[in-house]
This record gives sequence, structure tokens and C-alpha cells, in this order.
Amino acid sequence: MRAREISVPVGNAKKKANSVPKLEDGFAQQDIISVSQFSRENLEHIFAVAEDMRAIVKKQGSTDLLRGSVLACLFYEPSTRTSSSFIAAMSRLGGTIIPITQGVQFSSVSKGESLPDTIRTLESYADVIVIRHPEMGSAQMAADCARKPIINGGDGVGEHPTQALLDMFTIKEELGRIDGLNVGMVGDLRYGRTVHSLARLLCLYDVQFDFVSPEILRLPLDVMNDIRDHGLPVAETYDVADIIEDVDVLYVTRVQKERFADLAQYEEVRDQYVITPELMAHAKDKMVVMHPLPRVGEISNDVDADPRAAYFRQMENGMYVRMALLAAVLGKV
Amino acid sequence: MRAREISVPVGNAKKKANSVPKLEDGFAQQDIISVSQFSRENLEHIFAVAEDMRAIVKKQGSTDLLRGSVLACLFYEPSTRTSSSFIAAMSRLGGTIIPITQGVQFSSVSKGESLPDTIRTLESYADVIVIRHPEMGSAQMAADCARKPIINGGDGVGEHPTQALLDMFTIKEELGRIDGLNVGMVGDLRYGRTVHSLARLLCLYDVQFDFVSPEILRLPLDVMNDIRDHGLPVAETYDVADIIEDVDVLYVTRVQKERFADLAQYEEVRDQYVITPELMAHAKDKMVVMHPLPRVGEISNDVDADPRAAYFRQMENGMYVRMALLAAVLGKV
Amino acid sequence: MRAREISVPVGNAKKKANSVPKLEDGFAQQDIISVSQFSRENLEHIFAVAEDMRAIVKKQGSTDLLRGSVLACLFYEPSTRTSSSFIAAMSRLGGTIIPITQGVQFSSVSKGESLPDTIRTLESYADVIVIRHPEMGSAQMAADCARKPIINGGDGVGEHPTQALLDMFTIKEELGRIDGLNVGMVGDLRYGRTVHSLARLLCLYDVQFDFVSPEILRLPLDVMNDIRDHGLPVAETYDVADIIEDVDVLYVTRVQKERFADLAQYEEVRDQYVITPELMAHAKDKMVVMHPLPRVGEISNDVDADPRAAYFRQMENGMYVRMALLAAVLGKV
Repeated sequence: MRAREISVPVGNAKKKANSVPKLEDGFAQQDIISVSQFSRENLEHIFAVAEDMRAIVKKQGSTDLLRGSVLACLFYEPSTRTSSSFIAAMSRLGGTIIPITQGVQFSSVSKGESLPDTIRTLESYADVIVIRHPEMGSAQMAADCARKPIINGGDGVGEHPTQALLDMFTIKEELGRIDGLNVGMVGDLRYGRTVHSLARLLCLYDVQFDFVSPEILRLPLDVMNDIRDHGLPVAETYDVADIIEDVDVLYVTRVQKERFADLAQYEEVRDQYVITPELMAHAKDKMVVMHPLPRVGEISNDVDADPRAAYFRQMENGMYVRMALLAAVLGKV
Repeated sequence: MRAREISVPVGNAKKKANSVPKLEDGFAQQDIISVSQFSRENLEHIFAVAEDMRAIVKKQGSTDLLRGSVLACLFYEPSTRTSSSFIAAMSRLGGTIIPITQGVQFSSVSKGESLPDTIRTLESYADVIVIRHPEMGSAQMAADCARKPIINGGDGVGEHPTQALLDMFTIKEELGRIDGLNVGMVGDLRYGRTVHSLARLLCLYDVQFDFVSPEILRLPLDVMNDIRDHGLPVAETYDVADIIEDVDVLYVTRVQKERFADLAQYEEVRDQYVITPELMAHAKDKMVVMHPLPRVGEISNDVDADPRAAYFRQMENGMYVRMALLAAVLGKV
Repeated sequence: MRAREISVPVGNAKKKANSVPKLEDGFAQQDIISVSQFSRENLEHIFAVAEDMRAIVKKQGSTDLLRGSVLACLFYEPSTRTSSSFIAAMSRLGGTIIPITQGVQFSSVSKGESLPDTIRTLESYADVIVIRHPEMGSAQMAADCARKPIINGGDGVGEHPTQALLDMFTIKEELGRIDGLNVGMVGDLRYGRTVHSLARLLCLYDVQFDFVSPEILRLPLDVMNDIRDHGLPVAETYDVADIIEDVDVLYVTRVQKERFADLAQYEEVRDQYVITPELMAHAKDKMVVMHPLPRVGEISNDVDADPRAAYFRQMENGMYVRMALLAAVLGKV
């Protein structure tokens, strides 16, 4: 194994580190805002609990661990996947949900109420709040005014830490370890917040990165510098074919047409970022293809039957990881 | 009693029969897509369980039978009645719900996700999925890709099998039997999917039909042929007054103005399809008036107090039948 | 203490008294439509139960008191605060919820279904219904056709009785009593239904009123006459500064720009209706500032840290009061 070099993260992460405390004393009553809060020990605790949660769900469907607790799901933009996953997680823990998932049509908001007032109202009803909001920093703002734990369910181009946790958990479950892996990330590496958060979490481990994207969608400098500060090997290329034989993890994201000023340029490159059975024929026998979903063509449906296609198991893992997080911030595990 | 002649259904039903298996080995882990799946024995099992469910609700409100189970309600078009009924049914069975009832405003869908991907995501969180979708065949498509049971909550002009089941259950509960009854169906018999599904289910019994509709809204040929194939007596007429004295069941549906090219024609006929106390004065003492609701004038409010007006009891029966179905597909009854 | 003079209320309240029965024989299976139903004894019962509910929530999160019961939340207009509060209340009582909170997008309604039909359908699934509707009298109309208890969650410019109850409970909890208090009400006293309902409930006690509003937003005559009929002292003024030293309760509501024909007039007066730390410096040490929320600037955020700022505790009290009401109408307390 290569030596791990711990260094202070740069860029946005630094600013966040000032305001979001690390989870040094455990999760009880803490906010979950950014992946920068997590140590390797924190991750391993959550993963161990998530494995317990899976065993409980498989055996009996649910537990009474959070009986009497209420989760408010405050979604300022719709996200069927994330809200459904949190609702199922809280239900299977024996708790209940206040679903506020009407997209932009909030009555109080349309009456001009501030986010802090909405949060302070909801925390008078609920024990924990998941917030999804289109503006970066909104989850932190919510946490700053709340007495109850806030979980960031995605704050615009900011972070989506529970997605990064479920991605990490999936890698560990599928391949048995994280140290020593070669992780390929494909697609829109510039704007994809899931890529940024996952890359940062992976820096806590001894991995090597292969990034594959069109030139205009390359990984931002601050994330790249984070990785370099950790002394981890990095390579960049334009074509998935260049890395398919080497990677243990192929993390695929969508290349959106809207990102291209020149549509011809998009048409030219997009096929290089579609995962097909032909491409998979060159991959290792023991590796995984992952995707945060929804996908719109970037992984061929013909790949679904491949045992290495892990994206639907990844979704299921999201429920176990969120069960673990909810139980942890409410002080039960 | 007349002899019952069992024959193979024709038309649409045949195509469905190819893909939706009959419930020969019981309901556990099966999809509920079409009334064509049900045998008389299947119906009688569900009705017996539904009666048990009513007794439980009347006595204690709920049971723990589905404790730990999660139902995803995936409604691509709003339906307060059907979604509320399923939510109440699952709640009273001790299970929990992921409500996705925001009409067309689905985030994943608006991001272009395919129905199979949405289903495969939801089944990683839930134990059973009810889907309502404007396109015929969508419930079958969902069932084809799902490992968990799918219940069709209405697929456009296709089917709405749980409605037909609750209609049948209501007839049995109100009149004590189904064999030997004279069933009148009134209104829009051409486009009303509840009429088609109920008529097909009734063909499993020894009934006779009276159909009443404007010429342009007569029962489609394929449903009529199904009935004839079963050797059951059928009559058609334009006026409810022609049949009111004879029927044991008067199943009323709405005649929609939009169906008429010529509005004058609509104005001319619509009063023949409104059920009034005057009309009811000619009906048998022991008969029932039913309606799938919502109604918009086709049954006068003055009929509501008549003990033969069964439409609100019919609504309540919907909850017991859906409780029975949920418990059955999850293998508990 | 001044003598209390009980008299028949005038104006709207009289008409309501005809149709909504007083809660003389307790709450079991009764509708909660108007504050005019409540006696002082009724209030004190609900407040005692609400205190018990708070103790239960603080100690164990929830109770099983309403296990097996289902609440339908029928919201024809969105109200995150009221619907969330009822959902949390029912959850913490061990019951479950049918949330119908999609604003105007009701399927059955858009198909033209009447309110009575919607209510009669929902009561076949649920044990109690909370209705919020933009039209005055709608809650009463619902109650008139329902066999199950109806709770008015706000009917347009009509009433919002649970808001008035939580306001009263907050006063009692914060100051230990209601008799003998000086209650100041500030802002839009003309259109603010919370002001009217609270004022009418306070008439059951021995209080004195100070009303502060712009000329065009003065308290309506019928509410003023109610107060005078009870022989309670009343003063009116244009400026909060005139009363700030005297009041035990400062109940603040929003002065909406839209109420003013002349915008210049609005700009001129609005600062007189903003509560600031400077203003609070003149208030008693032991008094409370209340607001039904949402606020949009009429209480400065700098007041939030003042121990006399009770508006977020007021929100929390809403949950306990609604728990008490739900348990009461379902005959459990």
C-alpha cells in the first residue's frame, strides 16, 4: 500500500470546514452537511450499522429503534429517489414522516417566509429534518439556526453527502474493501456533485483515480488538488476504453447536452461515454459499474443483466445507509 | 339457474392473458394487473378476507399483519380516491407508505427516467408497488421488470382491477350473492373501463345484463362478445326506465358531454341517464344503486338517503378489498 | 377582578351558534368548527390534556393512544405549517395519516366532485378529517354531511379554531394565567381571522384589550361588539409605542401592502407595526410576543433571542393542542 498523506483540504471544503464540525465525538444530535465532516472511523461505523440495518430489513422488514421519532422531509425541489429512500428508511426504523415534497409550491415560502423560520417551525414538530434545496449553502444555513439535527439531502451545486456515503458503502459491499482499488469516474466530472463528494470521501482511503470526461467537463481544480494533497495517483483521459481494463469501480454519470455550447461537439463525444456490453467485455471479472441514477442512456439497458451492474443494488444500499444515519444522529447507534 | 358455458375470452383480454398469469397458485408475490387473472375461487378468497378485514377495522381500527412492510404508491396522475384508499388500507394493516402522488411533476421522470428504472429503484425501498399511469399497458410493463408485486391502480383506458373487485364485493355484500342477479349498467358504456372490467368479472358468475346508454356510447364489441361467449343473456336499451323495475344492481356511470360531437344531442339524452327518486320509486325494494364515483349529477343527491343507494358503502368496501389484496400478494392470507 | 358580563354574541357568531353545537357534553365524535363552540371548561380540559401530551412527547416521543386510527388531512390550499402540525400530532399519538395536501390540484375536485361527496368518501377510509378550504363555511358544510368528526383547519376568511386554541394555550403556559391580563393585538386587525378568533375566545376570560392598527385595518365592528357585550375594557390606537409598556401579551400580525389602495400610505405606516429590540426595551420583563407565523419583517429577527419572544414555542404548542383535540374528538381523553 502507498503511504497516505493527510493534508488540509483546499477550496470550498475549507470554508465549510470552518462551520461544519467534524464528527469526532460521534453522530448524536449532529448535523450531516458535508463529506468533509467524516473520518475513516466515522465511515466504518456507519457502514457497520448499515450492514446491521440490511440484516434487519431482510429478516423482519423493520425495527422499533426510532419508534416515537418524527422525520421532516423538507424538499424545496422534487427528488423522488432521495425522498422515497429517506421515507422508507424512517418507516423501517419504526419512526414517522412529515412529507413536505411539493416542489416549489410551498405555502409559507410563497408567503415569503425565511428558511430559518421554516426550519425553526418544523423542528418544533419533528426530531430530525432532511432538507433538499436548490441553493448551495442552504443546508448549512438550516443547521446554523436549528437545535435539532439537519441532514443535507442535496443543496444545489453544493453537496449531497448521503449519496456519497451510499456510493462508498456500495463499493465496500461489492468488492469487500476500498483500500487498493482503482476507481474510474466517467461523464460530467465538472458539475457532478456526486463525483466531487465521492472523490473527497475516497481520499480517506488508499485508492487511485482514473477520470474520463470531455475536455469541457474535466474535474475542477479544487477537487483535483484535494486528491493530490492526499498523495493519491490520478490519471485523466477522454475515452472510457482507455481505462476499462484496469478499473475496479466504474462510476458513471450523465453527460448533459445542455453543457455544450456547440451541439455538434456533444454529438461527437457522447458515444465515448456510453457503457455497453461490448465495452464491459474488456472489464475485469470482478469489478462494479455504478451510477447515481437517473440514467438517460449513458448505461445501455443491455448491461443491466451483467452481475457487475451494481446500480440498483446501490439504490437499495441508500436505504440502509440512511437508516444508519438517522439512527446515528438520533443517538441510537 | 342457467348453465354456465366457459369459453376463451376474445379481443384485448386474450393478449393480456398471454402475459399476465392467472392466479392459480394463490396471490403470494403475484402481480395484480387485470381482471382476466381471477377465477371464481380467487374472488371468493379475496371477498372472504375482505370481510375479515372489515371486522378487524370495525373492532379495533387496524391490525399488525403487514407490520414492517412498505407500500410505494406511484401515481403518475392524481387520483385522490384510489390513492387515499390504498394509503388507508396499508395503514390499517400496520404497514407504511411511500406516497408519490404529485401528478405529472415527477423529478426523475422529468429528468427522462424510464418507467422500468423508476420501478426498479422503488422496489429497492418498498415491498409492493401500486402504480397508476395514464398509458394502457404501463402496469404490465412495470410488472415485467419488477421482482416485487405490482398492483395496477388504473392504466389509462386499460384496466382498473381493484375497482372491479370492490364493485363485485359490494354486490355480494349488499345482496348476499352474485349468481342469479340481473345487473343493469348505465351511462358511458363505451369508454368506461370500470364497466368493462366489472362486466368481465361478472362473466364468472351466472348473471344477466341490461345495458343502457346513448347509441354512441354503447358497450364495445369485444366486451359484448366476451359475455356472449359465456352464454349469458344480454339486453340493450336507451332508457333507464325500461329496466328499472327488473334490475337487482343498477351500476351508474357518467355520460360526459365531451363524448358528443353535437351538444344538442347531449342535452337531449342526458336526462335519461340521471337517477332520481322518481325513477327509484319503480325499482325493486331489494336492489342497489352503485357508482364508481366521482359523480357529477348523474345520481341526484336526493337518492343518497335511499337505503338502496350503496355508493358510499362501495367506497368503504374499496378499503377492505385493497387490504385483502395487499395482505394476499405479501403472502399473509 | 372585574365582573364578567355574559351576553349573547352578535353578528356572524350568532349564525354559527345556530348550526355548530356547543361542546357541552364533551368532545367525543364532535366537530371542531368554530371558537364559539368552546366554554371556559372546554378550554381548560383541552389545555390540561395538551400539557399531558407535551410531557409524553418530551419523555418518549409518542404514545399509542390513537393506534389504529386514521386522520385524513384534506387541504384544498397549501399550508405547510398547519398540515405539518396535524401530521406530527397524529403520528405522535400512534395514528396514521392520509395526506391530501396538493393544493388546488385535486383530481376528484377537478372532475367536479362536490365537497359533500369528497367528505363522504374520505370518511369511509378515515376516522377523523381535518379540512382546510379557501371558502368560508366549507368546514361547516363538511360537518353537516359527515358522520365522522370534522376539524376546521381554516376556512378562508372564516375561522381557524385550532390556531386560536394554541394561541390561548401559549398565553396560559407562558404567563401562568389568562384572567387579569392586558392583551395587545397589532397589525391587520380587520382581515386577520386569527385575531378575531383569539379575541372571541379571550372574551371567556377577564382580560382587557389594546388594539393597534392603521385606520383602514381596524377591528371589525362585530368583533368589537362581542367584546363590549362581555363588558371587557377596550382601547384602540395607531402606534405600538402607545401600549408597549402596559401589555402582558403582544400578539403581532402582518400588515399586508396589498390592503392599501395608496402605496405611499403603506410606506408611511408600516414602521409603526414592526417589533424591534428598541421597542421591546420598553416592555414589561414578564410578557410575551406572539405571532401566528409566517412573519415577513413585522418582528425583527433581532427579537428572536429575547426570552419574551414566544412565537416558536407557540408553534410547538400547536402540536400539543392538536394532539389533545384529536384524542378528544376520538373519545380517548
